[in-house]
Amino acid sequence: MKMSHLFAPTLREDPGEAEIVSHKLMLRAGMIRKLAAGVYSLLPLGLRVIQKVSNIIREELNRAGAQEIFLPVLLPSELWKETGRWDVYGKELFRVKDRHDREFCLGPTHEEIITDIARNNIRSYKQLPINLYQIQTKFRDEIRPRFGVMRSREFMMKDAYSFHATEECLQKEYKNMYDTYCRIFDRIGFKYKVVNADSGIMGGGFSQEYMVLADTGEEEIFYCEECAYAVSSEAKKSDNCPKCEGKSLNKTRGIEIGHIFQLGTKYSEGMKATYLDENNEEKPFIMGCYGIGVGRTAAAAIEQSHDKDGIIWPMAIAPYKVVIVPANSEDPEQMVMAKKIYGDLNHEETVLDDRPGRLGMKLKDADLIGFPIKVIIGKALKDGKIEIKLRKSGEVKLVEIGKIVEEINDLL
Amino acid sequence: MKMSHLFAPTLREDPGEAEIVSHKLMLRAGMIRKLAAGVYSLLPLGLRVIQKVSNIIREELNRAGAQEIFLPVLLPSELWKETGRWDVYGKELFRVKDRHDREFCLGPTHEEIITDIARNNIRSYKQLPINLYQIQTKFRDEIRPRFGVMRSREFMMKDAYSFHATEECLQKEYKNMYDTYCRIFDRIGFKYKVVNADSGIMGGGFSQEYMVLADTGEEEIFYCEECAYAVSSEAKKSDNCPKCEGKSLNKTRGIEIGHIFQLGTKYSEGMKATYLDENNEEKPFIMGCYGIGVGRTAAAAIEQSHDKDGIIWPMAIAPYKVVIVPANSEDPEQMVMAKKIYGDLNHEETVLDDRPGRLGMKLKDADLIGFPIKVIIGKALKDGKIEIKLRKSGEVKLVEIGKIVEEINDLL
Repeated sequence: MKMSHLFAPTLREDPGEAEIVSHKLMLRAGMIRKLAAGVYSLLPLGLRVIQKVSNIIREELNRAGAQEIFLPVLLPSELWKETGRWDVYGKELFRVKDRHDREFCLGPTHEEIITDIARNNIRSYKQLPINLYQIQTKFRDEIRPRFGVMRSREFMMKDAYSFHATEECLQKEYKNMYDTYCRIFDRIGFKYKVVNADSGIMGGGFSQEYMVLADTGEEEIFYCEECAYAVSSEAKKSDNCPKCEGKSLNKTRGIEIGHIFQLGTKYSEGMKATYLDENNEEKPFIMGCYGIGVGRTAAAAIEQSHDKDGIIWPMAIAPYKVVIVPANSEDPEQMVMAKKIYGDLNHEETVLDDRPGRLGMKLKDADLIGFPIKVIIGKALKDGKIEIKLRKSGEVKLVEIGKIVEEINDLL
Repeated sequence: MKMSHLFAPTLREDPGEAEIVSHKLMLRAGMIRKLAAGVYSLLPLGLRVIQKVSNIIREELNRAGAQEIFLPVLLPSELWKETGRWDVYGKELFRVKDRHDREFCLGPTHEEIITDIARNNIRSYKQLPINLYQIQTKFRDEIRPRFGVMRSREFMMKDAYSFHATEECLQKEYKNMYDTYCRIFDRIGFKYKVVNADSGIMGGGFSQEYMVLADTGEEEIFYCEECAYAVSSEAKKSDNCPKCEGKSLNKTRGIEIGHIFQLGTKYSEGMKATYLDENNEEKPFIMGCYGIGVGRTAAAAIEQSHDKDGIIWPMAIAPYKVVIVPANSEDPEQMVMAKKIYGDLNHEETVLDDRPGRLGMKLKDADLIGFPIKVIIGKALKDGKIEIKLRKSGEVKLVEIGKIVEEINDLL
C-alpha cells in the first residue's frame, strides 16, 4: 500500500475525548473514529488489526475442532423471556420493535439463540460434543461507555458455545479451550494471566478470565509467585494462595480480554433443550461458553506496548509489518530504490511512504502508527547502504542494498 | 472436515416455509435456519459460502484500489436528519433508543456515515479520489421479508463509497467498479447482465444493476441481442433498443445482486461535506456508491444452478469442493483408502463422509449440499480403481488409485 493513498488520517494533537492511551493512540493513528458515545467506525488500519486478531482466533479455533457460524443481531424477545434474561439484563439491552410491534433485542451475547438451534437440530448423543463459534458485532448499552473500543456499546466479539452429553466431556472441551486461548494469546505476543473469576450474569459454574497485564488495566489481579494460581478481585477469598500452603498473593493490574465458562445446564434446563441419551432418555445439554473481546484485544495490545511516540504493535497483529521511508521524496535515486524494495517485499504487509514532505513528519507518523520495521532510505544510500530501525527495541542496522530484502524477511 | 463432526443438519422433506428453490435448498442442506421473519442464522456450510463470496469481493476490490473499513450498525438520527432520509425511509428503518432516549437507526446503508467521515477527515483535493468499502450486516424492516436470505430484514452486504474532486474522476472510478464487478461475478461463475436502472431512494444520477439470469428471478430485464444494451423494467422507456436503430428488445428474468450509482453531490451538498480545491475554494465532494448483496449472491447462485437433487455450486463458492464417500463405512479397506486420500488432499476444501449408514443416504446428502466433486470408494477398489463423479455434468470417471489425487487436483 502506498501511504499517499492509504486512508489513515493521523492527528498531531491528543484528542480531548480520550482518557486512556490506547484510545488516544487509536484516534491519533487514524485507526478509529467516534460516531456516537461508545460507537466507533474502524478505518483501514484499525480494521486490519481487528482482522488479524480475528484470523488468529479463527485458525486456532478451527484447529481445536470448533466450527464457525454466524448468528443474527436481531434476537426475538420470546427466547430471552424463556431464560428470564429479558428482564435481568435491564437497560443494558438495546430493545427494538419491528413494524408489527414485535420485540427484539440487539444481541449482547447468544446463549439463548444457540441453545434454540441445538434443541431444534441436535437429537442424539451421537451428535455430541459440538462447539460452535462466531466472530460478530455485539451490543450493550453500557451505563458509561468509555476508553474507545475498550468499553464500547457496539463491539466485536468472538463467542463460542459447546454442547455435551457428560460433565467429563465438558471438562475436556473446557481444557481444550483453555489451551486454545493460551495459544491465541501467545501467538499475539501478550503477557497475560489466567485468573479464577466470578461468573456474574452469565451464571453457571466455574469460569476463568484471561487478563493482559498492563498498569492501566481496569481490574486488580492477585497471583501466586510459586504456582500458576491467579484470581480476580471479585473471586478472591483469601490473601494467601490456596494451593501453595498459604504463600501471600501478589497484586497486579490487568485488562480482561477472554473469559471461559462452564455453564452446565443453566440454559438448557431453562429452555428445555434436550437430546436423547444411549437409553433413549431426554437429557438437558451440558454447556460451556467461551468469549474473546476482539476490539478489546487490539486496545489491550496498545496498553501493554507503547511509548511516548506511539503504538508498538506485536508483529502478529501490526496493521502492516514494514514501512519504507525515502528520506527525501524528491531524490529520484532514493525513490527508485524505495520502489524497488517495495516491489520485492510482500505488498500485503508493506507500506511505501511516497508522500512529499519532511522525513521527520514521516518518521513521526511511522512511530505513531507503530509499524514494527522501518526501512529508511537516506544519505547512506550513496555508500550502498540502507537503514533498518526496529520500533520495539530502537535497534538500528545499516544493511547493504543487496541484502536488504533478505534481512527484512528474516525479521518478519 | 469429517462429515460425522460437521454441523450440517440436512432435512429430508421440503420445509413448508420456503417458497423458492434457493430458500428450500439452503434450509434442507443445513446451511441456514430461521430465527424470526427475515432473520436467519448461518450454519457452518452457509457461512463458508458467504465467506467465499466475501473473499472474492475483497480481493477484487483491494486490487481495484478500494480500501476496507467497518462502520457501525447503530447510526445516530442526527446524521439521517441532515439528509432528510430519517423521514423518507419510513417504516423500513429499524429505530432504537438508547438508555438516554437518544435516537438511532440500524444501518440499512451508510451514505450519511461515510459522508460524515469524509467531511471530518478529508480537507484537500490532494487526498482525492478515495474509495472505501465494507462487508457488513445491514437492516431493513421489509414489509414482506421472504425467500430466505434473498429478501431478509438482516442481511450481509458489501457497500462502497467513492469521493472525487471532478466529474471525470467519478466516471473513471465508476468504470473501474463496473469492470471490477464483472470480474467478481465472472469469478463466481455467473451468467448475468448489466442493466440500466432507476436509482430510486438512493437518488443521484446514472446507475446500473447486475442481474443474475434465472427463470425464478423477481425482476424483468429487457435486452438487445445485437449489442450489450440492457435495461430494467422500471427504467425502460421504449420496446426497442435505443442503441441499435430500433431493434426490438428481448425479455428475460433476473435477480439483482449488485448496483452501482453515480451519486454526484446529493449527499455532500445535503451534509455540507466539502474539500478545498486547487484554488483553496470549498467544493462539495462528488460521490459514487457501489453495492453487492452478499447473501443474495449465494442464493442467486442456487437459483441459477440446481437440479431436483439439490444445489450445484460453482466451484469458486462451493462450501467444500470435494466429498470423499466410502461406500461401506464398515469395510476397513475402503475406510483406510478414504482416509489416505483425505490426508493427501487440501483439508480446507475436503469433506470425508465417515458416517455409518447406507451409501444412498450419503450420496443424497452430497448432492443436496452440492459438493462439485464426489470421490466414491466402492467395489471398484478391488480392481485398484476409484470413482469420481462431477455434480454439474454428472460425468463419471474410474481412476486408478495412484492417479486419484492428481486427477482431483486437476479438477479444482
